[in-house]
Amino acid sequence: MPELRQEPITGNWVVIATNRAKRPENFTQSEKEEISPNTICPFCYGHEHLTPPEVMAYRPTETQPNTPGWKVRVVPNKFPAFVQEEDKESHKPGLYKRKASVGFHEVIISSPDHEKNLAVLSHKELVTMISAYKDRYVQLRNHPKVGYILIIINHGKKAGATLEHPHAQLFASPIIPARIQEELAGSLEYYEKTERCIFCDIIKEETASKMRIILDTKHFTVFCPYASRVPFETWIVPKKHSSHFEQISPQQVNNLARVIRLYFAKLRKGLNNPAYNLFIHTSPNRSPSQVYYHWHVEILPKLNIQAGFEIGSGIMINITRPEDTAAYLKGIDLQEMS
Amino acid sequence: MPELRQEPITGNWVVIATNRAKRPENFTQSEKEEISPNTICPFCYGHEHLTPPEVMAYRPTETQPNTPGWKVRVVPNKFPAFVQEEDKESHKPGLYKRKASVGFHEVIISSPDHEKNLAVLSHKELVTMISAYKDRYVQLRNHPKVGYILIIINHGKKAGATLEHPHAQLFASPIIPARIQEELAGSLEYYEKTERCIFCDIIKEETASKMRIILDTKHFTVFCPYASRVPFETWIVPKKHSSHFEQISPQQVNNLARVIRLYFAKLRKGLNNPAYNLFIHTSPNRSPSQVYYHWHVEILPKLNIQAGFEIGSGIMINITRPEDTAAYLKGIDLQEMS
Repeated sequence: MPELRQEPITGNWVVIATNRAKRPENFTQSEKEEISPNTICPFCYGHEHLTPPEVMAYRPTETQPNTPGWKVRVVPNKFPAFVQEEDKESHKPGLYKRKASVGFHEVIISSPDHEKNLAVLSHKELVTMISAYKDRYVQLRNHPKVGYILIIINHGKKAGATLEHPHAQLFASPIIPARIQEELAGSLEYYEKTERCIFCDIIKEETASKMRIILDTKHFTVFCPYASRVPFETWIVPKKHSSHFEQISPQQVNNLARVIRLYFAKLRKGLNNPAYNLFIHTSPNRSPSQVYYHWHVEILPKLNIQAGFEIGSGIMINITRPEDTAAYLKGIDLQEMS
Repeated sequence: MPELRQEPITGNWVVIATNRAKRPENFTQSEKEEISPNTICPFCYGHEHLTPPEVMAYRPTETQPNTPGWKVRVVPNKFPAFVQEEDKESHKPGLYKRKASVGFHEVIISSPDHEKNLAVLSHKELVTMISAYKDRYVQLRNHPKVGYILIIINHGKKAGATLEHPHAQLFASPIIPARIQEELAGSLEYYEKTERCIFCDIIKEETASKMRIILDTKHFTVFCPYASRVPFETWIVPKKHSSHFEQISPQQVNNLARVIRLYFAKLRKGLNNPAYNLFIHTSPNRSPSQVYYHWHVEILPKLNIQAGFEIGSGIMINITRPEDTAAYLKGIDLQEMS
């Protein structure tokens, strides 16, 4: 019978309704959906002039900006949601409030290789990519107009990717997003009651029960959360308490690269390269270190459609048990990988 | 340049980023996506045995239950998210909370006609359909396990419909959904400040500015909201203050049927039968009449994909201005209709 599970941080409810469930392996994607085939890729070597000029790149010192040779390249998004402009509109009283969408919207090109997504990039390339994410957080966190920095990856057409070449997007917005506020409020409330970080407690609970664990490494726990909103939802949480992603240590970067490679190789093999959305949840850039909040990565594979009930209620219906999806991914054998 | 608009009821922000915009007419759907073709439709006359036994039907008295002849038929969902069972699990202390998903999950089959969606049903058929919705609210509102009743329609494969034959779904859940709690809290806060209903004020504002109005009739205002989350988002709001959908009068039912027929005919003609989600937001079934909350219908056409930024932040990026989509739909000429 269906059951309601409550996400412990936000208090949001999810219906786990397995009566119409498929078995985990039946989520395997059969269609290969091509994104903009036969177009010139603006993220490949030699096409640097097709993007706005780079704001950062890891490249040999002898190479020129906006030419080949880079390992990771960061450029402004051509169609930005946040821009570096002043809000000239004076405050108008009334029912409706608006402001200019001031901030930054960047593209972080993971590598020059058009084919290398998170499941295929080498360990060294992943270390470089994660280091670039950290550098962008550090670079933008003191900007007076920036209230929150969110890095996301859309993989696959169904997940909203419009360019195939693997890349992340960085959104630096003037406001703290609702979803973050919800997590901050919930984890603060928990801390006030228990004097403990709820994420640290979740890691303890998951590590003890083992039921939803996919990977457990020195620095990170990878699991399908208890109240997973979608089939195969996965969180990557650092074991050491830390509120801000940019506090990540070189050892953690190294371990995260390994975890990402293993997890996405399993996902790719187990479900035949499904579409997914990934994002890093971290504390607001200008807040000090917080005892109650804990940065982490959330991955939501896009295997089904959010329909009227979900949109109208905010309650997600998940047709799989996270215990089953975690066991399935845990069991995927990656013999060919080191 | 992009702008941030705040939804006045919930306080949620939306980015209106028209720099990558298409013109309204360019959202026209080109593909016809078939839902389960070549299967026997369980919602057509003569196939009544393919659904669970009906819980209500409008049918001539000389016909038997679960046989043809009905005008609207209500059956339990074959794969329910909420079921009529006791929660036998005793309360366990700990980090994670669960409860049985107790309640009702019904299908309201709009008419016996497999082809007649909201744009095509006759006025009389729509009146019958809306009356059936009302009857189900009235029937279930006093059930001790029911905390909220939500009626939704998924139209088209992209919106999550799995059966083509037009139908609504009713979810009677033990909890008040997060999205409703958010609206209730926001509208109560507004009322405490102003002693006015925020929905009544929105109608006043929209009627005065006319910028976002699609249809304005005796009993209902139809408009694209100021902080529309998706292209062509539309709200149908009764002009007379009323917190509960089931308080709808026969005159309002009659007018709502007309409004639905006109609106969906415009949407179908203007965008070539796009997929959409529709839901009725109303007060919790066991709350008394409220001065601060106002029932209404929300329609979200499914013309784009919610991607990583939206999911990770809760901030929607809308690539159209509601002023433009409203003007486009307002201008769609329906000469052929009475």
